[in-house]
Amino acid sequence: MAESFDAVDIIRVKRDRGTLTPEQIDWTIDAYTRGVIADEQMSALNMAILLNGMNREEISRWTAAMIASGERMDFSALGKPTADKHSTGGVGDKITLPLAPLVAVFGVAVPQLSGRGLGHTGGTLDKLESIPGWRAALSNEEMMDVLRDPGAVICAAGAGLAPADKKLYALRDVTGTVEAIPLIASSIMSKKIAEGTGALVLDVKCGSGAFMKSEEDARELARTMVDLGKDAGVNTVALLTNMNVPLGLTAGNAIEVEESVEVLAGGGPADVVELTVALAEEMLSAAGVRDADVRAALQDGRAMDVWKRMISAQGGDPDAALPVARESHVITADRDGYLSELDAMSVGVAAWRLGAGRARKEDPVQAGAGVRMHAKPGDPVKAGQPLLTLLTDTPEKFARAEEALAGGWAISPEKPEGLTPLILDRIS
Amino acid sequence: MAESFDAVDIIRVKRDRGTLTPEQIDWTIDAYTRGVIADEQMSALNMAILLNGMNREEISRWTAAMIASGERMDFSALGKPTADKHSTGGVGDKITLPLAPLVAVFGVAVPQLSGRGLGHTGGTLDKLESIPGWRAALSNEEMMDVLRDPGAVICAAGAGLAPADKKLYALRDVTGTVEAIPLIASSIMSKKIAEGTGALVLDVKCGSGAFMKSEEDARELARTMVDLGKDAGVNTVALLTNMNVPLGLTAGNAIEVEESVEVLAGGGPADVVELTVALAEEMLSAAGVRDADVRAALQDGRAMDVWKRMISAQGGDPDAALPVARESHVITADRDGYLSELDAMSVGVAAWRLGAGRARKEDPVQAGAGVRMHAKPGDPVKAGQPLLTLLTDTPEKFARAEEALAGGWAISPEKPEGLTPLILDRIS
Repeated sequence: MAESFDAVDIIRVKRDRGTLTPEQIDWTIDAYTRGVIADEQMSALNMAILLNGMNREEISRWTAAMIASGERMDFSALGKPTADKHSTGGVGDKITLPLAPLVAVFGVAVPQLSGRGLGHTGGTLDKLESIPGWRAALSNEEMMDVLRDPGAVICAAGAGLAPADKKLYALRDVTGTVEAIPLIASSIMSKKIAEGTGALVLDVKCGSGAFMKSEEDARELARTMVDLGKDAGVNTVALLTNMNVPLGLTAGNAIEVEESVEVLAGGGPADVVELTVALAEEMLSAAGVRDADVRAALQDGRAMDVWKRMISAQGGDPDAALPVARESHVITADRDGYLSELDAMSVGVAAWRLGAGRARKEDPVQAGAGVRMHAKPGDPVKAGQPLLTLLTDTPEKFARAEEALAGGWAISPEKPEGLTPLILDRIS
Repeated sequence: MAESFDAVDIIRVKRDRGTLTPEQIDWTIDAYTRGVIADEQMSALNMAILLNGMNREEISRWTAAMIASGERMDFSALGKPTADKHSTGGVGDKITLPLAPLVAVFGVAVPQLSGRGLGHTGGTLDKLESIPGWRAALSNEEMMDVLRDPGAVICAAGAGLAPADKKLYALRDVTGTVEAIPLIASSIMSKKIAEGTGALVLDVKCGSGAFMKSEEDARELARTMVDLGKDAGVNTVALLTNMNVPLGLTAGNAIEVEESVEVLAGGGPADVVELTVALAEEMLSAAGVRDADVRAALQDGRAMDVWKRMISAQGGDPDAALPVARESHVITADRDGYLSELDAMSVGVAAWRLGAGRARKEDPVQAGAGVRMHAKPGDPVKAGQPLLTLLTDTPEKFARAEEALAGGWAISPEKPEGLTPLILDRIS
C-alpha cells in the first residue's frame, strides 16, 4: 500500500457520519489483516459502521478490499457456465442439497462453498457430514474434477478466500457488531465473488427464524448484495423468502439429508420443492440457460443421479443408512383444529438444543438430532396426534428443547387465512 | 459480584438504544478491570455509548462503579473543609498554580491532584516541574502533611484511584472514543470523587483551544458533571469559560510559572487574575467560607507566602531562577491597527510543537519552550512591533510552529467590538 493512514482518524470519519475514501478503505482492510489496526480499533469502527452506515461506494470498495486480501478462484478452465446460491440461513433450510445436483443436470457447474451451523441455523456441511464417509475438505484440483463431472460440488471454503473476512467475522461475533447490513453484505459477497462464480442467486430470508426479522431489513440486505454482485461483474439475483415457519418437515442433520433425498426422488414437502425449483430456475437463467424443465429432472431421476455421483466423489456412500438418534420424544396436539402457527425460531432453537447445532465453533454436532414436524400451518390436526418429534442421543436435552417450543405452535378452531407465501419478492 | 452477564448482550443493549441496569453497569466495569471483558468488546461498547448516549442514572452508576474499582481518599482527619478545582484543559491555563495557595489562605485545604499535558493543552505537573527540585509524586502521608500546613498541595494522582478509568481512558485514546460526554464526565468525576474532596469547582472550557468546541457541548458536559457531583454528595459548581483565546500572555511551562508568580505578587494579566479570583470565590463558597476578600490575599502577599511554602514542601526552590529556552524567534505585526484575533488552538499547537507539550505520554517536555504573547485581542498594535515570541531549545522546530500560527491571528484597522467575555455562565 502506497498510502498510510491513522486508525483513529478513520474511526472518527465514520463516527462523525463521514464517508471513507477508497484509499482509506483499502488501507483499513489491509492494515487490519496485517495486524496494524488492532482488534479494539476495528471493533470501534465496526460499531460506528453498524450505527452510522456506509454508502454503496464504500460497501463496494470494502468488499473489493476483502477480496483482495486473499486468493481468487477461477473456473474459466471448465468451459461451462457456473452458478452458485447463497442463503442467509434459516431453520430446516436444506435447499442446497437437492438444488446443486439439479442445476448441474442442465450443464451449469455449481461450486457451492458452504459453511457450518452456528446457533439456531443449521449448516450445510454439518448435514452432509451425517452421510457415512463424506468429507467436506477438497483440494482445488479435486474440486475442479468434481465440477467437470458430475458438475456440482458442495464443500468447505479454503482458508485462502477473503482472509480479512474471516478475521473480521470472528471479531464481530464477540463484539455485538454482527447485525450491520454493510458488514453482512460485504462478508457474504466477498467470499462469493472471490469464489469466482459467474452467476449468483441469493436466498434472503426474513422472519422469526431468519437473521433478518423484518422484511424491510431483508430487502435492504438483498438490494445491497445484488448491487455488490453487479459492481463486481457477477450476474446476481435475490429472492426474498419467508422464514417465519421452518422449511419442510425436518430440522436437523441426517433427517434433512433424508428429506432432500425425497425431493431428489420426485417427492418431498411442497415448500422445499417450490423453493428448490424457483432457485434452480433463477440460477439457470442467470447462467444463460433458458426454459429448463427442472421439475422433470427431479421426477425422472437425472438430479438423483448427479446427487449420488457428487456424494460418491467426496467419499460418501449415497446408499448407506443414515445415523438415527437414540432417543425420541413426541409432542402431541392438545385439541382438534388447524395448526395456525409453527414458529421457525422455536423449532430452530429446539433442534439446536437437542444437539443438531453448536454453541461454539469447536463443538461437535449430533448427526441424528433434530426436530421432525408432522404438520405445517394450515394442516388439520386431531387431539392426541403427534405434532413434533424431538430427536437426540442425549435425552437430558428434551426439557430445554420443550421449553424452546413452548408457545412456538398454536392450534385454532378455524382454518387459518392469509398465510404468508414462501417467496415474497424477487430483486435483480 | 453476585451476578454475571454476557459482554455481547450488554453491547447489544446500548447498540439498540436501550438502558443498562445498575447490575449490568457494575458487572461491566468490574469485568473490564479484571480482563473478563476484552478490549475489543469494551471499545465497541464505548462507540455505542458515544453514538447513543447514556441517561443520568446510567452515567451516575458508571461513575460509582469506576470509583469502586479502586481506593478512596479521606481528608476528614484534617479537621477543615476541602475544595478542589478541575479544568477541562486549555491553552495558557496556569490557573491552578495561583488558585490553590490563594484558597488555602482562607483555611480551606486544597488537595489538587493533577495530570500531565497531552497534545496542545498543557499539564499542571509539567509546568511545576520546571521549578528546580520540585517533585510531583507524594505519599499519602506527605500529602496529608502539606494539606495541614501550608494547606494546599498540587501533586500526581496515585495509581490506586479509579484504576478502571485509567484502563478505559487508554483504550478510548486509541479507538476514537474520547469525545463521548458520558465517558468524559464519568472519567473526570470518578477521580475527583475518589479523591475525597468536599467541594468541587469545574472550569469547563469551550472554544477553539478547548476539548469542547461548542458552547452547547460544554454546557452539557458541565451539567452532567455537576449532576454526578451532587449524586455523590460533593458540593459541585461549574463555570463555563471561553477558550477561543489563550489565557494570559504565556503558553508553555516555566513561562507560565513565571506568570503565575506575577499574579501571586498582585500583578499579572487581567484575564488570569479574573478567572483565579472567580474560581477561588466559588471554591471558598462551596466549602462554606463566605465573603472572603481573595483579591486582598493576592495583593498583601498571603497567597504568595502559601505558594512558597507549598513549593518548598515538595522539594522545590521558589526563589530559584527558572529555566530559559536557548533560542527565540519573534513574529511581528505586519501593519498598524488592533489585534482582532488570537486563536487559542494555533497558539497551543505552536507551543506544543516548540517542545512545551508531548505527542506521546512517554515523551519529555522542554521546561523553557512555549509562546509568549505581547498583545491580546482588542489591544492596539503597530507595524513591526513584536506580537509573539517563540521559545525553544531546538530551533529546527520554529518552522512548524510558525505554520501552526499562520492564520491564527489577525489585525483589523478598527478596534474589534463584542469580544466574548471570559466567564460565559455558572452552572450549579
